[in-house]
Amino acid sequence: MKPNVAAAKEALSHLDIETSDRAIRAKSRDFFWYSPVLKTRLDHVEADFVVSPRSEAEVIEILRTCYAHDVPVTTRGAGTGNYGQAMPLAGGCVMHMRHMAAVKEIHPGRVIVEPGCLLKDLDAACQEHSGQELRMFSSTWATATIGGFVAGGSGGIGSITWGALRDLGNIIRLRVVTMEEEPRVLEFRGEELHRVSHAYGTNGIITELEMPLAPAYDWTDIFVAFDDFDAALEFANGLGNQDGILKKLCSVYEAPIAHSYFQRVQPHVAEDTTLVGLMIAPHSMEGFLTFLGRHPAGQLIYRSDDNDWDRTPGPVFEYGWNHTTLRALRVDPSITYLQVRYAYPDHIALVQKMRADFSPEVMQHLEVMRESGRTIFAGLSMVRFTTEERLDEIVRLHEEAGAIIFNPHRYTLEEGGRQSADQRQLDFKREADPKGLLNPGKMITWDNPDHDYSSMYAYPGLQAAE
Amino acid sequence: MKPNVAAAKEALSHLDIETSDRAIRAKSRDFFWYSPVLKTRLDHVEADFVVSPRSEAEVIEILRTCYAHDVPVTTRGAGTGNYGQAMPLAGGCVMHMRHMAAVKEIHPGRVIVEPGCLLKDLDAACQEHSGQELRMFSSTWATATIGGFVAGGSGGIGSITWGALRDLGNIIRLRVVTMEEEPRVLEFRGEELHRVSHAYGTNGIITELEMPLAPAYDWTDIFVAFDDFDAALEFANGLGNQDGILKKLCSVYEAPIAHSYFQRVQPHVAEDTTLVGLMIAPHSMEGFLTFLGRHPAGQLIYRSDDNDWDRTPGPVFEYGWNHTTLRALRVDPSITYLQVRYAYPDHIALVQKMRADFSPEVMQHLEVMRESGRTIFAGLSMVRFTTEERLDEIVRLHEEAGAIIFNPHRYTLEEGGRQSADQRQLDFKREADPKGLLNPGKMITWDNPDHDYSSMYAYPGLQAAE
Repeated sequence: MKPNVAAAKEALSHLDIETSDRAIRAKSRDFFWYSPVLKTRLDHVEADFVVSPRSEAEVIEILRTCYAHDVPVTTRGAGTGNYGQAMPLAGGCVMHMRHMAAVKEIHPGRVIVEPGCLLKDLDAACQEHSGQELRMFSSTWATATIGGFVAGGSGGIGSITWGALRDLGNIIRLRVVTMEEEPRVLEFRGEELHRVSHAYGTNGIITELEMPLAPAYDWTDIFVAFDDFDAALEFANGLGNQDGILKKLCSVYEAPIAHSYFQRVQPHVAEDTTLVGLMIAPHSMEGFLTFLGRHPAGQLIYRSDDNDWDRTPGPVFEYGWNHTTLRALRVDPSITYLQVRYAYPDHIALVQKMRADFSPEVMQHLEVMRESGRTIFAGLSMVRFTTEERLDEIVRLHEEAGAIIFNPHRYTLEEGGRQSADQRQLDFKREADPKGLLNPGKMITWDNPDHDYSSMYAYPGLQAAE
Repeated sequence: MKPNVAAAKEALSHLDIETSDRAIRAKSRDFFWYSPVLKTRLDHVEADFVVSPRSEAEVIEILRTCYAHDVPVTTRGAGTGNYGQAMPLAGGCVMHMRHMAAVKEIHPGRVIVEPGCLLKDLDAACQEHSGQELRMFSSTWATATIGGFVAGGSGGIGSITWGALRDLGNIIRLRVVTMEEEPRVLEFRGEELHRVSHAYGTNGIITELEMPLAPAYDWTDIFVAFDDFDAALEFANGLGNQDGILKKLCSVYEAPIAHSYFQRVQPHVAEDTTLVGLMIAPHSMEGFLTFLGRHPAGQLIYRSDDNDWDRTPGPVFEYGWNHTTLRALRVDPSITYLQVRYAYPDHIALVQKMRADFSPEVMQHLEVMRESGRTIFAGLSMVRFTTEERLDEIVRLHEEAGAIIFNPHRYTLEEGGRQSADQRQLDFKREADPKGLLNPGKMITWDNPDHDYSSMYAYPGLQAAE
C-alpha cells in the first residue's frame, strides 16, 4: 500500500473499514465479468481499502481525507452493474454505501431515501406505508441499491410505462457531496440532475435521493409462447401501444433462449419457442386477455395467479433485462451480450434485419420501453462470443445499420454511452472533483479529450495485473 | 298520451314516476343545444313520462312493461351529452338512472358501481376508501354520471395518459339488461364491451360498471401563456410525449379564447394569448417545470398551489374538453363547435393547416390525448356559426384535409361517429332490442341501412314540433 493510501486509511480508522483481504477483493468487484473483454482487463483490479460510511457526515469526512491524501475513491452500492462502473481501476478507497440505507420520508407519489437502500427494501417500505412502489427497477431488485441504480443504471422493469431513468420526472432530486478540500453538499433538481445521474460516481457522491412512486399492484406474471419470432415482436410492440393496459414488463426472448437457458420454463416450451415475459396489473388482465385474443399466434403458458406448473418459475422480471444474460451465462459461460437501442419508427424492421444478419450467433432479447412518448425496443442481445475482434465487428455492423449500441464491453461512460463527451457531467467534474479522484478512469473526456474512439480506451492509471 | 304509453305508465305507477310537466320537460333534455342544428330540430322533443328505477329489478320491470306496450325507452344519466344522446326522439319513457348510484365495491385499481353515480361522488368514494380515482372523466365531472359517461362519452380528462374509453383496459366489465319480452341480464367483458359502450343505450341498459382506477393525487392546476400558437402546440405535443411526467390534462386554447371567454382568466392574459391548461401530479412538478424551462416561449401564469390571483379560476379541467365551448356559449351564443381527431403523425401539421384555412371563423381548441400509444390531438374547435350550409362545408373541408370529424350536429351514432355501421352494436341490437324500442332514432343502420350520409339523417319517428 502506498504511503498516501495508508495515511488516508489510518486517518479513517475510526470508521467501518473492511480488513479482510477476501472481503476487500469481493467489494472491489461488480458484474463486469458479464463481458469477456472486461473480465480479461479488470479481473485483477482491487481496492486498497473499503470503507462504509454511516452518514453523510462520514461521507464528507472520507472525501475530505482522501482528497487531502490524493487517494482515489470509487463508490459502490451492491456492485451489480455490468459495465465495471464500480471497479476501482486505480485502487485506493472503495466507499461502500450499505450502511446508508434509511428510508427517510414517504409521501403520495414520492420517497426520500438514502443511496444504500436495496430496491427490494425500498419497495417493501413504500408498499407497507401506502401501497406504493418504485416506478422502475433493475432485474437485480433483490440485491441492488437505489443509489447504484441511479448512478449506474438507465431503466428497467417499469420503463415500458415510464421511459428511462434520465427522462424528466423519473428522478426528482439528488443530494450530492463533492470531493474538494472542503466537500460541499449540493441539491440537484431538473436539468442539474443530469450532471450526476448515470455518472458512475465520477463527479460527486449521492447521499440522498427523492424518487417518484407509482401505485403498487399485485402484478400478474405471465409467459406467452410464440412459434414465430415476428409474431412475438408485433405482439410486444402492440402491447406497448395499449395505453389502457397497465404493464410493468414486456420482454421478448428469441428461440432457443427460453428452452436453453430458463431451467424452470424449459419443460413448458419447445426449442423453437419465442417467449414473451410480462407483468400486467391485475385490473388490466381483462384488457390484456382481450389483446392476447387478437393475437392467436400467442399461447398463454403461464400466469402467476392461475397455473398448474409444478415449480414456480419465480418472478418473471428475473428472466428479463440483465437477468436474461445472467441465466444464459450459468448454462453457457461463452455467452455475452450487447445493449442496443432500436429507435422509433424503424425499431421493428431494424430488429428483424439484425436477426436476419446475425442469427444464431446473436440471439434477440428485447425489452419494450417508452422513449419520447413512443414504444421502442431496448435490445439486450445475447452473443455467442468467439473473439474480441468479432464482437467489435458485430457492434460496428449494428451501428452501421442504425442501431444505437451502449457497449457493455467498455468501462468508460463515453464508450458505454454515446461515444462523446457529456458536457454537463464533464463540467461538473471540473467543479466537484478538481483532482480527478472520483472513480478514476471512467470518464475519457476528463483523461484524454482527444480520444477518437477508434479503439477501446485503456486507462493509463489502471492497476497493473500481477 | 297514446293509450299504449298511458298503459305502460299506469303499469309502472308504483315506481318513482315524475308527474310535473316541467320536470318531465327538464328530464327530456340534454346538452343538445350546444349545436344550433340540433337545437332547431330537437328543442320540442319531450318524453311522455319519466321513471327512475331504484334497482336492477325495477329496470327489468320497466323494460318488460314498455316492451309489452311497445313504448320507446330512452335512458339517461345527468343529460350532459352534446349529441342529443339522451333526447327521447319518439317520446315515450325516459328512464332516469339517478337512484341507482351505489358504489358497490372498491379494490386496488378498480371499482364496481351503479350507473347513476356522479363522477364526482365516485371519485370521492374511491379517494376516501383508498386514495384512488377514475382514470378519466368528462369536464362535467361535477354533474355527470359514470353510466352516462360510458354510454355516451369517448374520453376526457385523463385521456392524455390512458387513451380513450374504448381502448382496452379502460372499461373492465359492464352488466347490461336487454329489452325483450323477458329481459335478460348479461355480463360483458373484453371484445363484448364494444357492443354497448358508447351506444347511447340503443341496445341494452347498463346496470353495473366495473371501471379501472388510478391513484388519486392532489393534481396541480396550471395555466401557461404563449404569444405564439405554434409554440403552444409544440409544447403541448412535447409534454404528451414526456413519459415520466404524470399528467391528467393538457388543453390548448387558441387566442382569443382565454381572453374572450374565460372570465376569471381574462385579467391575466392578452387578446393574443394562446393558453395551455394543465393538470400535473405534484411529484411531477419538478419534471414539468424543467420541461417548461426548455420552452422559453411559455410563461407560467397560474399554478393552483402557489399564485397571487385574487379569484381562483376554479378547476382547470372545467375550462377544457366540452366546458370550453360551454364557457364561450355563455358569452357568445353564436358559438358552436366541432369534434375533430387529428391522427398521428400528421396531427401538428393538420392543425396548423386547419388554422390557416379557417381562422378566425374556427378557433382551435385542442386536447392532448393518447391513441394507440402515440400522442395526438382531439380537437373541440369552436366555430362562429353562420349557417348550417357553412357548418357542413367546414366539416367537409376538414374531412377532405384528413381530419376525422365526430359531428356533434347530428343525433345518430353513425353521424357522430365514423359514418358507418358499427356491426357489433347493430348485431347486438337485433338480439337485445328486437322491437327497436331503445333510444329510437339514434342508430341509422337499424332504421335505414341504405342511408348514404350525403345529408343529415332525419329520423322518421321524430316527434312533430307543435
